[in-house]
Amino acid sequence: MDNNNDKCNDKNDNFEIIYDTFQMKKSQDGRLQLPNKNLTNLKSDTLYHLGMSTDTHNFEQMFGDIKFVCMGGTKSRMFEFAKLAAHELNITEPQIVDLIGSPNRFSMYKVGPIISVSHGMGIPSLSILIHEILKLLHHAKCTNVTLFRIGTSGGIDVPAGTVVITEKAVDELLRPFYEQRIFGKIVRRLVAFNQNLIKELKRIAQSQNNQGFQTITGTTMCANDFYESQLRIDGAICNHTMDDKFERLNYLKKAGVVNIEMESLVFGSMCHYVNVDAAIICVTLVKRTDGDQVRVDKQDYHEMQQRPQRLVMDFIKQRLAINHNNSNHHSNDNK
Amino acid sequence: MDNNNDKCNDKNDNFEIIYDTFQMKKSQDGRLQLPNKNLTNLKSDTLYHLGMSTDTHNFEQMFGDIKFVCMGGTKSRMFEFAKLAAHELNITEPQIVDLIGSPNRFSMYKVGPIISVSHGMGIPSLSILIHEILKLLHHAKCTNVTLFRIGTSGGIDVPAGTVVITEKAVDELLRPFYEQRIFGKIVRRLVAFNQNLIKELKRIAQSQNNQGFQTITGTTMCANDFYESQLRIDGAICNHTMDDKFERLNYLKKAGVVNIEMESLVFGSMCHYVNVDAAIICVTLVKRTDGDQVRVDKQDYHEMQQRPQRLVMDFIKQRLAINHNNSNHHSNDNK
Repeated sequence: MDNNNDKCNDKNDNFEIIYDTFQMKKSQDGRLQLPNKNLTNLKSDTLYHLGMSTDTHNFEQMFGDIKFVCMGGTKSRMFEFAKLAAHELNITEPQIVDLIGSPNRFSMYKVGPIISVSHGMGIPSLSILIHEILKLLHHAKCTNVTLFRIGTSGGIDVPAGTVVITEKAVDELLRPFYEQRIFGKIVRRLVAFNQNLIKELKRIAQSQNNQGFQTITGTTMCANDFYESQLRIDGAICNHTMDDKFERLNYLKKAGVVNIEMESLVFGSMCHYVNVDAAIICVTLVKRTDGDQVRVDKQDYHEMQQRPQRLVMDFIKQRLAINHNNSNHHSNDNK
Repeated sequence: MDNNNDKCNDKNDNFEIIYDTFQMKKSQDGRLQLPNKNLTNLKSDTLYHLGMSTDTHNFEQMFGDIKFVCMGGTKSRMFEFAKLAAHELNITEPQIVDLIGSPNRFSMYKVGPIISVSHGMGIPSLSILIHEILKLLHHAKCTNVTLFRIGTSGGIDVPAGTVVITEKAVDELLRPFYEQRIFGKIVRRLVAFNQNLIKELKRIAQSQNNQGFQTITGTTMCANDFYESQLRIDGAICNHTMDDKFERLNYLKKAGVVNIEMESLVFGSMCHYVNVDAAIICVTLVKRTDGDQVRVDKQDYHEMQQRPQRLVMDFIKQRLAINHNNSNHHSNDNK
């Protein structure tokens, strides 16, 4: 390999790095406030990739009751989750319809207090979705919303089918921030998750008595591609060997990384920044110390990707039951 | 804003930076060779996101005749392009079917010597697709393939509807490389496009006599999100003002940037690395010096996104005519 280290070297590569650890204060009424002063000056707001606008859609009427937003990579998974939610919450609507029109980048379903929406693959794709979902929740004046990403991932040294609740997310260099290049500067923002929410999910998982798989918590590595950055040596381009791979996988394992996916940094960073509760639950489809290739058959894949869905669904049912009991209690008080 | 610059500062942020300017040599028979020695040791190869495997699919039989791969963001655009190709090449197949099964991340169509395939949004998503498309072309023993990305973009200071052929791609800091974090190191690879191919496309565009829009060449900025990195001030999070935006847009304009999209760096880098001819042609949907929001109506959007398609289609028809004439000529020689 002819690596000439000068040809594309930018001698002026001294850009300012900003460590932005801001977090929005929670409002007393639980409504989602957004850290963008420009929004108040907008006459109308087009959420382009959702195919909706404040001009043409009444967000408060359509989405004012939303308490949970669940996102995942594919349209079909999120349609499955919407069907599961309708079944579990006994919501019999005539049809579960995709609310996103042209330009059909994502699919979104609403079932009672739940939005189920696809985010595609990778940080940029999820970033687009979550900007517009947060604006939707803001325009709809939603209160006390919890966000979930229910995804698939590669496990480092756990059996395929293991469910991982992300405790902490890091990049491919094990750094715990989400790096962007904004207005000529490098901006690094904190990535953090609500640890109480993680404990609650863990407790529910333990009570589920799942047979044949474990639910664990740990560090998730967020990669920007599926092949080289995830230490796969079977991509179209690769300059590394099997030995390099095992050395690095062991290094990651020792650092506490249990699984690898492609969206946790932006999800964890943006939810922390605007201060909404959020958690990531991914099933592992492959044990990377056994190999690179994902060879789960269709039947197993379908069952495995339901595991995070069932955990989130049980969480939602418990939350709704608590709120229901609380409001019954309050109405008794008021008699 | 309470920006504490220490909390997430990693003092050990001194990772090795590798400038990797390697380029694969073209093989004499025009077949696509891949820079990955591990591929020869694979007993079988599962292209997971295409839902295909060398175990179950005969790539040479299915795709051996492919000469052009056209990719774009959405499934519907690439279905439209497949229909256009079938019409323009007089290929009457019973049905244009999506060749990708589970897990339906992308959609792919084959029409004669053309693959039309969706890549989703952002570098990571396109990266997954192009790794697997390059392996598909390699397994199918294809020769002399040309790749196109036909996309949408934001224009800096050109009217919405302008078609831009990317001459050069840069990141949000105007750096001309694609940066990855691979096996604990920062790897920066060259991004470059075949300038003869660009000239040929420009010539065809000029001969098209398009009414009402221009086709230009210039620098494309590749961003990792749609909002902050693209200098939009209407996202869920923003710490900048209208003045900041215009200052930076003018700065980009002076540096030769004509449009902004989200995939050019990885497309340009990987095609350059494996040494396949490749070009990016994007229509602009918004003039950013006028505003941030994309408000093209459905009818206009549909017509605008056909503009890059028609340019690529005319290119393909000319290439096929030349090859057809050449092979007629050769068969005369052999008489």
